[in-house]
Amino acid sequence: MRIIHPAKKSGSKIVIIIGGGFAGLNAAKTFVNKENVFVILIDQRNHHLFQPLLYQVATAGLSPADIAVPIRGQFSQAKNVEVHLGRVTCVNLKNNFITVDQDEFEFDSLIVACGAQHSYFAHPEWEIFAPGLKTLEQATEIRRRILSSFENAENEMDPKKQQALLTFVVVGGGPTGVELAGAIADISRTVLIGDFRRIDSSSARILLVEAGTRVLASFDDSLSIKTKHDLEGLGVEVMTSARVANITSDGVQVGDEFISAACVFWAAGVQAAKMNFEPEVGLDRAGRVKVNKDLSIPGYKNAFVIGDMASVEISAEKFVPGLAPAAIQAGKHCARTILATFKGQARTDFKYVDKGQMATIGKYRAVMQSGPVKLVGYLAWLAWLFIHIFYLVGFKNRVSVLADWVWNYTFSKRGSRLITESQWQLKK
Amino acid sequence: MRIIHPAKKSGSKIVIIIGGGFAGLNAAKTFVNKENVFVILIDQRNHHLFQPLLYQVATAGLSPADIAVPIRGQFSQAKNVEVHLGRVTCVNLKNNFITVDQDEFEFDSLIVACGAQHSYFAHPEWEIFAPGLKTLEQATEIRRRILSSFENAENEMDPKKQQALLTFVVVGGGPTGVELAGAIADISRTVLIGDFRRIDSSSARILLVEAGTRVLASFDDSLSIKTKHDLEGLGVEVMTSARVANITSDGVQVGDEFISAACVFWAAGVQAAKMNFEPEVGLDRAGRVKVNKDLSIPGYKNAFVIGDMASVEISAEKFVPGLAPAAIQAGKHCARTILATFKGQARTDFKYVDKGQMATIGKYRAVMQSGPVKLVGYLAWLAWLFIHIFYLVGFKNRVSVLADWVWNYTFSKRGSRLITESQWQLKK
Repeated sequence: MRIIHPAKKSGSKIVIIIGGGFAGLNAAKTFVNKENVFVILIDQRNHHLFQPLLYQVATAGLSPADIAVPIRGQFSQAKNVEVHLGRVTCVNLKNNFITVDQDEFEFDSLIVACGAQHSYFAHPEWEIFAPGLKTLEQATEIRRRILSSFENAENEMDPKKQQALLTFVVVGGGPTGVELAGAIADISRTVLIGDFRRIDSSSARILLVEAGTRVLASFDDSLSIKTKHDLEGLGVEVMTSARVANITSDGVQVGDEFISAACVFWAAGVQAAKMNFEPEVGLDRAGRVKVNKDLSIPGYKNAFVIGDMASVEISAEKFVPGLAPAAIQAGKHCARTILATFKGQARTDFKYVDKGQMATIGKYRAVMQSGPVKLVGYLAWLAWLFIHIFYLVGFKNRVSVLADWVWNYTFSKRGSRLITESQWQLKK
Repeated sequence: MRIIHPAKKSGSKIVIIIGGGFAGLNAAKTFVNKENVFVILIDQRNHHLFQPLLYQVATAGLSPADIAVPIRGQFSQAKNVEVHLGRVTCVNLKNNFITVDQDEFEFDSLIVACGAQHSYFAHPEWEIFAPGLKTLEQATEIRRRILSSFENAENEMDPKKQQALLTFVVVGGGPTGVELAGAIADISRTVLIGDFRRIDSSSARILLVEAGTRVLASFDDSLSIKTKHDLEGLGVEVMTSARVANITSDGVQVGDEFISAACVFWAAGVQAAKMNFEPEVGLDRAGRVKVNKDLSIPGYKNAFVIGDMASVEISAEKFVPGLAPAAIQAGKHCARTILATFKGQARTDFKYVDKGQMATIGKYRAVMQSGPVKLVGYLAWLAWLFIHIFYLVGFKNRVSVLADWVWNYTFSKRGSRLITESQWQLKK
């Protein structure tokens, strides 16, 4: 079936953007109301997701709608942008078209920005026992498992089984793992206090298991040490140099020790989203597409890969990191390159500006690092808070997230403690 | 397995309450910190749901967490109340115990308040094609179907199929049906304007199908006429004396006419929740338990049925309605009766105070009726708004619902327009 584009002015060039994450959304916004350009933004979901706060949905601090906005709503005033809900099955670089479900869409320029997904290091069977945290569905599933575990522990009279229900293992000591473990500690130590009659929720055991020698490996050494110390202060047991050998429905095998746990969550590794390019393109070991310095695919000046899917070398063996600021910068740069090319102007290389990185540790504490600046504790947390509110898309989301936080931090109660039915077990 | 109740003081009487809806929750609250009484409140869900606003979750106006609170959190300060997540499989009236999953719980007094569910009038096979609106899962499923229909219509090039995707049928002209149809009209006529490029969302056809001769049959005649007129003003086609003969995946058979529609929703009938009583108890035609004037089960002075599950006659053939205020009143009365009985005092009959009824019609309009007072239009809507905010449990929910409404009504945008994965198709 041929899809028509009634909003496209004749003569305007078609730019197709695949993916409405930070990279794709910011690329599309750069084209808004630019003359002689018609943008088709394609995503398989109807919403842009603010992934950095997903762990707060997983731990009942925020509602899904707080951190997600309908992509379509971002472009209701942009008459040269069409948003299309669909799954791209093939990118034909040679003949300049893509296949979306059953339809073919031609393009003059193409931006591929499909992000990343979890990698279980050749153990996909672990996923059902240890969900990751990349989508809203996964976040509400993790929330369901955490809250259900406390409920089941309250109803369990066998002390051994009860202990397993009150054991939470987070695999992976990067920012997501640190934030998730800290938030679970906060739930058990403050939010749920007084709610149960047969268990002491604050006796819950929370373990953060990291294969490397330290947590937050991408941060400075001193911040890793501080983070470990702060996590332990919250009641999190931090295990480093601890390799996960197996995950089952009963728990996790870490080295020689089997840890009985009802809840295991995966924050250990990501890989680039897969896309069927014709002809094939060169990938690095993480599955990312190797791109030129202007972010275009080698051999195809009109096709670009950006965001978590792109392998962009800054210097020898140093790559642009998979962070929101990097994706935003790449999206804008790439869009400007396409506009310049349409006008016959010269292109420039992408220059990544390192804005630093940060992670929260429970309530009121965070670590941040930006160039030579290192911050820990309350000040870093305040910075984290304002930066995240600032980057959150949509005025309404900013206001409602801020309101939820004021509530959560003031009353130590989390408002979204809902156990809704799982679609997870049914799927597998 | 024997469940222990460490919070129970020895010598105190056990009151078991089944169901954390309006009736059960208000009964439990009446017992808070009363001496010599220990309450076990059992529900199969962890949250109390404010059902009157469920249609707003279904139409993307509110988030699930806005209208639901964890039951447990309501009693963290009440040391004589234990909240138990579980499913009651049997009520043994003769020997004063109930079975919860695999466990047996003894009681001195019992309150059964399990509410109501949808009735498909001997056509349970219709449910998959026409979900009802009683739980959060159903509400997010309806939201997913409405939003997905607009998305699919945008991608559909066959005009006939596109028209079916833009046709929404609500079966049942009671308050829920009226509110749902009005809100869908509002979405198509205002919220989604500008979002699509190939369809005109405001051309969506919305039908309200009622088997009786008028909508809002429990209201005064003049209000039914006004409501029909207002709905038509919003773009809703109101079909009265229209009986649904069949529902399939393609649409609805109404009398001789087959209406092709991707979305059909059920608001036509409810029946009392089923409970396995031993010995059996007398039910009325709607499946409700016939109770004495003090709400106790005939023959069992210590066991009560209240809320939507109870058949309470006010006068000949006139029954207490299945409304939140009635359930709240019954919950409080029943708890006071039990307290009086424990003290050896006399019991009084339940006297239902009719607080009236109301329904919204789209934005800014409502109908309400309370005794001789009848209100329509903006004033009724204002009254509706404040009464609902007032009855909403939890200060945080009140604030966040009010904030969401201010946003929705001011900017005609709904914040929760998320399509998340369905668990619905998988289940069936």
